[in-house]
Amino acid sequence: MSKKESSILQILNIYHTSVFTKNADAFLALYDQNVQVFDMWGAWSYRGIEAWRGAIADWFEKLGSERVVVDFDDVQTMETPDVAVIHTFVTYKALSAQGVELRSMSNRMTLALQKSDGIWKIIHEHTSAPINHETLKATLKR
Amino acid sequence: MSKKESSILQILNIYHTSVFTKNADAFLALYDQNVQVFDMWGAWSYRGIEAWRGAIADWFEKLGSERVVVDFDDVQTMETPDVAVIHTFVTYKALSAQGVELRSMSNRMTLALQKSDGIWKIIHEHTSAPINHETLKATLKR
Repeated sequence: MSKKESSILQILNIYHTSVFTKNADAFLALYDQNVQVFDMWGAWSYRGIEAWRGAIADWFEKLGSERVVVDFDDVQTMETPDVAVIHTFVTYKALSAQGVELRSMSNRMTLALQKSDGIWKIIHEHTSAPINHETLKATLKR
Repeated sequence: MSKKESSILQILNIYHTSVFTKNADAFLALYDQNVQVFDMWGAWSYRGIEAWRGAIADWFEKLGSERVVVDFDDVQTMETPDVAVIHTFVTYKALSAQGVELRSMSNRMTLALQKSDGIWKIIHEHTSAPINHETLKATLKR
């Protein structure tokens, strides 16, 4: 693997670390300029890196002194030279500044990746939790 | 295009028609045996065609004499020789046996496709609607 190449699973490592450190620039560098995100919360879609940057800035700002530990479980991948797909379960665990667990939530995540100059970028992301048929509420624990 | 080849957008046409006619066999023929579905409703995941077959049988049975018209809006595709990704907004409109619209709901949908013997099959599907942060309820109208 040349220095210019990145493996698709590096995406998940950088996702984990950049969320934990609330480093928006490192986080957003995972995404293609033309990314379209179907995020679990609020909006039907974020189109383009600038729209997504706004959502991430909000997220990190609202955390205040809290930190978030992201874990991936049951990661499935499909990879071809130029396009790859990852789907996985994700747990987001919020910790207080003292490291005490405050809350935890699971998601399903699908990532579509595209290689650009030897580097994988997320061109599409879809996160969600299943909806209860009677209450229409999201189930946040897997 | 040889007779054995199929285009990725044919998947959406067959999805539409097989839901409208409640033809579970035609619908399930769109999917790979090893499909993993992150469906909007109820379960975190359906793994394998038999689990998915059960969910589809339930859906079509619960419809009774109703029919469902599926429309796709803002379809985005990424295609390589062996792997493709489609993401789109979907509207499911339920009609009475007399053709009167009873209800309508929007979803986001991501499909990962894999070519097998020249035929595209869905190897992963993810459907959802965004969740309201305060109520934790799904937003069903786009």
